[in-house]
Amino acid sequence: MARKIGKIVLAYSGGLDTSIILKWLQETYGCEVVTFTADLGQGEELEPARAKAAMLGIKDIRIVDLREEFVRDFVFPMLRANALYEGQYLLGSSIARPLIAKHLVAVAREVGADAVAHGSTGKGNDQIRFELAVNALDPSLAVIAPWRQWDIRSRTQLLEYAARNQIPVPKDKRGDAPFSIDANLLHTSTEGKLLENPAEIAPDYIYQRTVDPVAAPDRPETVAIGFESGDPVSVDGRPVTPAALLTELNERGGRHGVGRLDLVENRFIGIKSRGVYETPGGTILLAAHRGIESITLDRAAAHLKDELMPRYAELIYDGFWFSPERDMLQALIDRSQGFVSGEVTLRLYKGNASVISRASPSSLYSADLVTFEEGGVAYNNHDAEGFIRLNGLRLKNWAARNGR
Amino acid sequence: MARKIGKIVLAYSGGLDTSIILKWLQETYGCEVVTFTADLGQGEELEPARAKAAMLGIKDIRIVDLREEFVRDFVFPMLRANALYEGQYLLGSSIARPLIAKHLVAVAREVGADAVAHGSTGKGNDQIRFELAVNALDPSLAVIAPWRQWDIRSRTQLLEYAARNQIPVPKDKRGDAPFSIDANLLHTSTEGKLLENPAEIAPDYIYQRTVDPVAAPDRPETVAIGFESGDPVSVDGRPVTPAALLTELNERGGRHGVGRLDLVENRFIGIKSRGVYETPGGTILLAAHRGIESITLDRAAAHLKDELMPRYAELIYDGFWFSPERDMLQALIDRSQGFVSGEVTLRLYKGNASVISRASPSSLYSADLVTFEEGGVAYNNHDAEGFIRLNGLRLKNWAARNGR
Amino acid sequence: MARKIGKIVLAYSGGLDTSIILKWLQETYGCEVVTFTADLGQGEELEPARAKAAMLGIKDIRIVDLREEFVRDFVFPMLRANALYEGQYLLGSSIARPLIAKHLVAVAREVGADAVAHGSTGKGNDQIRFELAVNALDPSLAVIAPWRQWDIRSRTQLLEYAARNQIPVPKDKRGDAPFSIDANLLHTSTEGKLLENPAEIAPDYIYQRTVDPVAAPDRPETVAIGFESGDPVSVDGRPVTPAALLTELNERGGRHGVGRLDLVENRFIGIKSRGVYETPGGTILLAAHRGIESITLDRAAAHLKDELMPRYAELIYDGFWFSPERDMLQALIDRSQGFVSGEVTLRLYKGNASVISRASPSSLYSADLVTFEEGGVAYNNHDAEGFIRLNGLRLKNWAARNGR
Amino acid sequence: MARKIGKIVLAYSGGLDTSIILKWLQETYGCEVVTFTADLGQGEELEPARAKAAMLGIKDIRIVDLREEFVRDFVFPMLRANALYEGQYLLGSSIARPLIAKHLVAVAREVGADAVAHGSTGKGNDQIRFELAVNALDPSLAVIAPWRQWDIRSRTQLLEYAARNQIPVPKDKRGDAPFSIDANLLHTSTEGKLLENPAEIAPDYIYQRTVDPVAAPDRPETVAIGFESGDPVSVDGRPVTPAALLTELNERGGRHGVGRLDLVENRFIGIKSRGVYETPGGTILLAAHRGIESITLDRAAAHLKDELMPRYAELIYDGFWFSPERDMLQALIDRSQGFVSGEVTLRLYKGNASVISRASPSSLYSADLVTFEEGGVAYNNHDAEGFIRLNGLRLKNWAARNGR
Repeated sequence: MARKIGKIVLAYSGGLDTSIILKWLQETYGCEVVTFTADLGQGEELEPARAKAAMLGIKDIRIVDLREEFVRDFVFPMLRANALYEGQYLLGSSIARPLIAKHLVAVAREVGADAVAHGSTGKGNDQIRFELAVNALDPSLAVIAPWRQWDIRSRTQLLEYAARNQIPVPKDKRGDAPFSIDANLLHTSTEGKLLENPAEIAPDYIYQRTVDPVAAPDRPETVAIGFESGDPVSVDGRPVTPAALLTELNERGGRHGVGRLDLVENRFIGIKSRGVYETPGGTILLAAHRGIESITLDRAAAHLKDELMPRYAELIYDGFWFSPERDMLQALIDRSQGFVSGEVTLRLYKGNASVISRASPSSLYSADLVTFEEGGVAYNNHDAEGFIRLNGLRLKNWAARNGR
Repeated sequence: MARKIGKIVLAYSGGLDTSIILKWLQETYGCEVVTFTADLGQGEELEPARAKAAMLGIKDIRIVDLREEFVRDFVFPMLRANALYEGQYLLGSSIARPLIAKHLVAVAREVGADAVAHGSTGKGNDQIRFELAVNALDPSLAVIAPWRQWDIRSRTQLLEYAARNQIPVPKDKRGDAPFSIDANLLHTSTEGKLLENPAEIAPDYIYQRTVDPVAAPDRPETVAIGFESGDPVSVDGRPVTPAALLTELNERGGRHGVGRLDLVENRFIGIKSRGVYETPGGTILLAAHRGIESITLDRAAAHLKDELMPRYAELIYDGFWFSPERDMLQALIDRSQGFVSGEVTLRLYKGNASVISRASPSSLYSADLVTFEEGGVAYNNHDAEGFIRLNGLRLKNWAARNGR
Repeated sequence: MARKIGKIVLAYSGGLDTSIILKWLQETYGCEVVTFTADLGQGEELEPARAKAAMLGIKDIRIVDLREEFVRDFVFPMLRANALYEGQYLLGSSIARPLIAKHLVAVAREVGADAVAHGSTGKGNDQIRFELAVNALDPSLAVIAPWRQWDIRSRTQLLEYAARNQIPVPKDKRGDAPFSIDANLLHTSTEGKLLENPAEIAPDYIYQRTVDPVAAPDRPETVAIGFESGDPVSVDGRPVTPAALLTELNERGGRHGVGRLDLVENRFIGIKSRGVYETPGGTILLAAHRGIESITLDRAAAHLKDELMPRYAELIYDGFWFSPERDMLQALIDRSQGFVSGEVTLRLYKGNASVISRASPSSLYSADLVTFEEGGVAYNNHDAEGFIRLNGLRLKNWAARNGR
Repeated sequence: MARKIGKIVLAYSGGLDTSIILKWLQETYGCEVVTFTADLGQGEELEPARAKAAMLGIKDIRIVDLREEFVRDFVFPMLRANALYEGQYLLGSSIARPLIAKHLVAVAREVGADAVAHGSTGKGNDQIRFELAVNALDPSLAVIAPWRQWDIRSRTQLLEYAARNQIPVPKDKRGDAPFSIDANLLHTSTEGKLLENPAEIAPDYIYQRTVDPVAAPDRPETVAIGFESGDPVSVDGRPVTPAALLTELNERGGRHGVGRLDLVENRFIGIKSRGVYETPGGTILLAAHRGIESITLDRAAAHLKDELMPRYAELIYDGFWFSPERDMLQALIDRSQGFVSGEVTLRLYKGNASVISRASPSSLYSADLVTFEEGGVAYNNHDAEGFIRLNGLRLKNWAARNGR
């Protein structure tokens, strides 16, 4: 990889780490760096990033609002699959990385850069997600991962580097290493420090977008989500854009303490790590989506989706969003969603988001079929006789053989 | 099936329906009927069943306490798989049927009966579960399912049959059809009546073993579950038997409104039905088991389990507990549980059962590996370089081809 | 199902069994019967079917050539999946049934019939395939299966019925029950009689479209199949239609004894049966398709297809061609085939169809990457170091724990 | 990896490459090297390896016959799964590596070595298989892979190194790079040179243990394989040990040209490679094992195995033999094999190994059930009615909804 690099596009947050990286790239490669900063709903002002980049000598500064694209083209397709990593995690970080990579690549092509750079560390999942996405989108682009390349080996050295290079260090970053936090419209994740002991109970102060259920309102709130072809399109009957919908559900869910998760998970690189996640809107949407599917999706379709979901979630977690296999699974999932339309009502209350009602113009639910009172032509009790008998035939044969 | 039946063992609850069935069997087959009544923790007195059976002329009346066997040999093996049907249902009814079938078969063999009978209706799952289990345990036994065979076609006819045969009808059964309820140590399920409209919000009065979270205590409670080789063995440090453990967790969970589920599910026979489930102890145990696995199970082992879980749960739901394929999956699951030992602490609060701490002598979690501070010999950042590059190699190749 | 039937469309072969069925339908339902006879390449004259139907009083006689549709819309989509039931069977009967059902339904709608009828027996798979397909295509249509309904219980009774009704019985059908044979452009299957003992060696005379490899030519023959987006489009460089292609490969493969299979398989209804299959063209196509995929399909895409193939094949075998789950799997499979283009050369020789060469303009094979001589920038040996180390990290951790 | 290495166990073949490696290890690490050479049935004299190692100064030379262990503990368990990688490859190389690794680790522990070394190159699969196996068996052992570490970069440099160090170079290794060949009792593989062009037809001279079918005998030969609990135990009625059985089948199959495969496959590291495989005995055994399973394995058990097989084969191919997930899958597979006993007869003829007969004392095949002649109590045609109707119920419901 001794390739000569002429221009680099850096995924730039405006924070301390990526500012140091910016400087290090300039020094190490001696070439122009273009910064790319995305608004994914992380809840921070982005204009300071512009000022900081300018101060560090950047000419081409890109700041883009990707919130609608994020929710529409990444979060919603994933929601169609009811994706949960390791049965619990809503993939809030994982799903944001390919979107950023997509835009890094687009900017790189536009400005004629031959490399992109990111600030993810060498032990995490995000480096993989960025790099595999770039590989799949433009195999000719180099990827620079300073955390794996430079000789900064500790927090102290990092702060020294900042001092040496006149990079301002915010007050709250001057002491010990902070928690490692990632935020976007789907979630906030918190890792590190005391959380590194999985037996240690997470203190309430680490949570950022949800209240402790204990502190949540004493009265439940009801919310109705409308779906069309698998995607949420309305809240309480009001049509809303994808990002507006998720923003509102985050706010309402967060207020009720919905969507907290304290998890030890398996990273792709082979180590276990503990994270605390807050995904209020996503938690509501997953429950609602399962709710609308429960009346509109055929049994075998639903079961096939359920069987493939862990694989699909694993692919996203591991960084294979842009890959033939995720693409194939998405085709299967999307094929199932045509009639997944209707409305689901949930009750939000002190950490719970519970489906209490569902209705759909394309429902497969039939009160006639299910009712305990026999009647109607649709179902004949005697059919069950043959159904059971032929399902049992091989078992009888097997049991008789085993007993011989 | 014109086989002559000489003696029948009936799964007898002592309730109205199975009492009518008892009478009908005597009339129809003109042979001795043996009743079998099991205590699965349904929370009802069973001695009245004895009296009622005696009154109906039964000589051989069996009443057995199966609570420990139920939890130890059925609930716990299923828990090892983290089984959830359709992503949500804890299979409380499904897992009880094969146990009852097992004992029906054992009694039939002991008393020389050539048939067993059950009181499940012709539209439900339970008929399948009973009959497939009997098929697999003794293919020579006939199974009699009066609800599919007799000409009683409505509730009115049922009550007339009871009146005609001097079968006492409890007061609460004299009016409209009641909810259809199933209860055992794992859960209570409620179906029918107004629940048959999936848009109708379930009223609180249908819940039986959990309080509404709104009415639950305002202060959280903490509970610690100890595991050995995948099975729960202690509560708050006290060793307890399987049934005692589940009983205690039901009580504590139920008090906090834990384990309610309002679901539209797909029956094996091909129709959708809506049920309300209360599984307080099971809900706690599932969270706890996932918690202890999170630190003791290897990633690939956990993911393989997750991918096969929906199939495993489907088999149990559909009635294939006694089948070669469930047996094979169980072997795979059990093989993974040898080191799934340790303790998990959960917080119970107003419907939530949240893991807050986990510890194990056989933990795979390594703070050394995960820490953000580099150091130690175990992990080398540069390894990630090659790891990502080779994972990306096929993607680059694929992307380059696609772009040609 | 006491529904009044006003007009029936019968899947009519012109043979003895369906002629008897025709008569029985007329007698039993007292309504008009429309016959539908399809040319699927079974290799029989169909005009005699017209004469026979006319003789039996049928006014509306439909005879249609479905060969191109069969291969293009049924065989080829299945080929894209490399479908093999139970690892071996190319699904030659299974894939023809939904096509016939589709046309029965279309004719029924056109002529205003309210039922369709088929001549499949009550123990086989075909009854299921016909009926599930009709259910999925027009749930309002009744399906009549005389073999399950009438009281003909033996071959003797069948012949008596024919005699009684002036239905001519061909000479070769007058003695013992013949082999049960099914043929179409994809295969010939033979079941019954001596084959019912799985230990009995099948005599050569039962084979119909392949020679015994021992009798095949002593010199190999080479054939080149061209593919575009997963489907075969040319033979030895000549563009050919789907049916023409399969016809030619049947002839050439059959001459070399390619595609014989002697198998005990599991029917959906729960019994094992033994069949002898001849699928010369299909066998060549499967090998060729795997060959072209081997250089054009990404590894993960190929492995995902391989993992889902048994399920896909099972669905087709069991009669679920027209179902949401087959449709979803097909979407996944088809999504993978865009670049599956190129040419594969095979050697046909005494039962073997062996890929000997493959080439593609969209190949993913890279001699630069694979060569034992190091060089080029694409692959760096040191990357393997990190790749292996991180793949091994969880194993080391696991082994260390197990050994503690 | 700055760890001080005190003693190394080298997987030593006695060939040129591993002799050079031996020398390089001595020079580079300045420590004692112990050689380990295994007889896996590769068909070479091993005593010359002893002489050569001695000549290179090795004191502790281990030569062990592992043929029975190889077949019994590695090949047979894999056969129980009917394992085929990418639908075709019998995993002949993949399955030998973990066995060698197991013995390298055992010797290392015995002699107190702190590292093992192997001669696999940096682009192949074998390096991964060796190293992951060592990781999983003894995480404290270092693994040395000279091909990834030294600065020899071409064949010329390799020969120069040999010359410089008085390592004799056999005549046939002096010119161009030879084919890359791997052989053991299960297979011979050939890669490299002209095979690196997948369009190039493999010449007959590269095959080593099979004749060209064209040159094979003109008369078929019959062979009968006896199985007990999933493993082959006899040939033509003679009980034989695992290695003797495979040796005999290799000889007989090879003589008939059975087991040739010309394949482009996907390596774990992400590149495609083309190999030519000869697996005569393994090909016969796979067909025979499927044959005995066809009459002794329940349908759902067989289908579950088929669905998991690709994953199982992938694990072996990728080097995860010693892993929790392979172990779990093996438990599932082995659980299914208890009744897989009986005898299968095959016809070997010019490249074909075709099952022609199977018989078992624990057969599930029932002529009574399958026969076209109705009769007996086991099967009632009317059962099919209800079976189909309930299987179709959801499809009718789905179709009706879709058409609304």
